[in-house]
Amino acid sequence: MKTTFYHAGCPVCVSAEQSLTNSLDLNKVELEIVHLGEQPGRIDEAEKAGVTSVPAIVIGNDTLHLNFGANISDLK
Amino acid sequence: MKTTFYHAGCPVCVSAEQSLTNSLDLNKVELEIVHLGEQPGRIDEAEKAGVTSVPAIVIGNDTLHLNFGANISDLK
Repeated sequence: MKTTFYHAGCPVCVSAEQSLTNSLDLNKVELEIVHLGEQPGRIDEAEKAGVTSVPAIVIGNDTLHLNFGANISDLK
Repeated sequence: MKTTFYHAGCPVCVSAEQSLTNSLDLNKVELEIVHLGEQPGRIDEAEKAGVTSVPAIVIGNDTLHLNFGANISDLK
């Protein structure tokens, strides 16, 4: 299943990324990690998936916000 | 790594549980799912791990709150 982890390089993001993505089964999920600070062109896609803050992970059609690092509006 | 998913049976919890726990690599993580509504005796342990709302997942020493279902104080 297509899975995208959106983050912005903040400490909360990095910590969440490491603990969570290391635990995922890469045989089940096709994982892409997107740094929205470095790839602002992907912000629109993240918002369409329902991402309102980072870090967040979109697993198939489910969007999960993980703790709180930054509002996506602050990344624009 | 010991991993505990705390929830309270709410719709947000169930949705997060299904999408996330199905994506975990059970060869890497030792997963336990705890329903705090049914097991209130585990609330104390969850709070000590830093859980303030459910659904939340504790992976090793990292506590991640997933979206928002309910405050842990409302489960007492």
